[in-house]
Amino acid sequence: MLYPQLDTPCVLIDEAILEANIRGFQAYCDEHGLPVRPHIKTHKLPWVARKQLDAGAIGITCQKVGEAEVFAQAGFDDILISYNILGSAKLARLLQLAGQVKSLAVVADSEAVLQGLSAAFADSGRTLDVLVECDTGAGRCGVQSPQQATQLAALVAALPGLRLRGLMTYPAAHSEAVVQQWFSRAAALCDAQGLALEVFSSGGTPSMWHAHEAPIVNEYRIGTYVYQDRSQMAAGACKEADCALTVLTTVVSVPVPGRVIVDAGSKALTSDLLGQDGYGQVLRYPQARVTGLSEEHGVLDFSGCHQAPVVGERLQIIPNHACPVSNLFDEVHFCRDGEFLRTEQVQARGKVC
Amino acid sequence: MLYPQLDTPCVLIDEAILEANIRGFQAYCDEHGLPVRPHIKTHKLPWVARKQLDAGAIGITCQKVGEAEVFAQAGFDDILISYNILGSAKLARLLQLAGQVKSLAVVADSEAVLQGLSAAFADSGRTLDVLVECDTGAGRCGVQSPQQATQLAALVAALPGLRLRGLMTYPAAHSEAVVQQWFSRAAALCDAQGLALEVFSSGGTPSMWHAHEAPIVNEYRIGTYVYQDRSQMAAGACKEADCALTVLTTVVSVPVPGRVIVDAGSKALTSDLLGQDGYGQVLRYPQARVTGLSEEHGVLDFSGCHQAPVVGERLQIIPNHACPVSNLFDEVHFCRDGEFLRTEQVQARGKVC
Repeated sequence: MLYPQLDTPCVLIDEAILEANIRGFQAYCDEHGLPVRPHIKTHKLPWVARKQLDAGAIGITCQKVGEAEVFAQAGFDDILISYNILGSAKLARLLQLAGQVKSLAVVADSEAVLQGLSAAFADSGRTLDVLVECDTGAGRCGVQSPQQATQLAALVAALPGLRLRGLMTYPAAHSEAVVQQWFSRAAALCDAQGLALEVFSSGGTPSMWHAHEAPIVNEYRIGTYVYQDRSQMAAGACKEADCALTVLTTVVSVPVPGRVIVDAGSKALTSDLLGQDGYGQVLRYPQARVTGLSEEHGVLDFSGCHQAPVVGERLQIIPNHACPVSNLFDEVHFCRDGEFLRTEQVQARGKVC
Repeated sequence: MLYPQLDTPCVLIDEAILEANIRGFQAYCDEHGLPVRPHIKTHKLPWVARKQLDAGAIGITCQKVGEAEVFAQAGFDDILISYNILGSAKLARLLQLAGQVKSLAVVADSEAVLQGLSAAFADSGRTLDVLVECDTGAGRCGVQSPQQATQLAALVAALPGLRLRGLMTYPAAHSEAVVQQWFSRAAALCDAQGLALEVFSSGGTPSMWHAHEAPIVNEYRIGTYVYQDRSQMAAGACKEADCALTVLTTVVSVPVPGRVIVDAGSKALTSDLLGQDGYGQVLRYPQARVTGLSEEHGVLDFSGCHQAPVVGERLQIIPNHACPVSNLFDEVHFCRDGEFLRTEQVQARGKVC
């Protein structure tokens, strides 16, 4: 039986694969002179972030003030929160955080967000670093043109309590040429106005091996690469053997031949499809398909397989998307070469604010 | 501003709607003489389950041993775990649980599961109640025919440590006639073999107002009805005004007219579609569509609306599926008539095993 010490469903992290993933991308970035600022949203574990920094990362990226608080408490002192921070409660916590770490930066894509940040920091004696978020095609947040980026950069530079740090984008996959052109145009416009931009931050795992194709980028934020997952396999960022995170699950029923029910449902694998067919990839059964999930049941189709598992047997499933899986479990289990090593609490799990 | 005391994203539960939902379905079941055994997976809160029992429910349903442990600790003493329990760790906890509560039952759909249960209870001096799980068409777990149900019921009756309690199904929506026929046939077969079946347990929120159309059913397990959600609106089980759970969220960006980005992503709303178009329903903006989610961003399309919210404004979103939302938050906030009342810890959140 796989990992008899552990009850299912649970999350396994293969430490050897994890380390290889961290080393591999850091080596690529070192070769291209590209600083890495890993996004901790994928693992939410200070222990893993420490490995990323030890390998050469320059700092970390968080998405939430609550995540940044956990990591600041764990000793991380260079943090970018790549999110528009709004509201008095979060702004008060942000100011407190600024007093705890050596370097704290946020992003902003509107005057409303900047006015809030400035009001919180203006009379505090502290200065907050701000990157202007740019929508280079992903269609989420961000100013819409290099001209708008320049206007907002000028406002950052003018507002008390804030310091202009640079530009940031969460790009569409495989849009390096667009990012290069967009950032270059904005840089020229800012330069013409005497606005200094130190950092051009981009990121994303799907295009990780193409990061060097936008040479203006001098900071790469990347999360999923530490664990990898099925959607990244489909994007060409990794192979199955690079997937460090699997959900260990038990077959609880085989009601008819070929229909295998496991105890990993959407509460373990999430309902994220990310363009995939089915909800995960079963290790050692390449023909098996995860056809349906309810909260506590996974429905697997083994009709295309030579043999099917029996009730009580354990399977490992690579999820479509590793990051939200980390958020569903209070703890994850590290292993190496098929042997259980130890359990870690997911310290930044559930930090919604 | 909506609920200025609370930071976003967070979960709001309207207590008046919650109470009306509990009262309404209990009244319907009382009228039809149908005992209710609510499923706590939706709320994971002893405080809400107490309201359900106070209204007339006969006991509770859990999906996980870990959930049952939380509720046993909170004083609930009649618990059905509607899941195949497998493996030495869970079986040991199940035995312990049996010593803590007045009535504990589980389901089983295979000899392998029954042998495990019997081995755990045989020499313990305790007896475990077992319902045979029947697949009446939902295509998940369960024996496939009344004949198989009868065979497994005979095995329950024969195995030491176990007591035959009845039959259980999680039916397809709107399949009352099938359930009636299936259970009746199995009951006749069991009766012919001298196997007494006390309980015929069915359930589900989508068909809640049709429960009486399968009169053999004498226990109705139901979860989502306490909160209701967008998928239940689509199923005809409720209206928007019956939805007690909403996610309170802040607009963090309006990068282009009509595109509204909120701080509720899949980490707040889940990626569950359940056949719906989009990921939720925005209160007060019936034309707004939740077109995309990443973990911390919701992308809303307000292009069909007369007016759109601005950065900093708060919205309430009814999720497609309330149950997994409860599992994403450490706490939920109760309110009434638009006023914040108090915060409750989601005690059985994250009980994966």
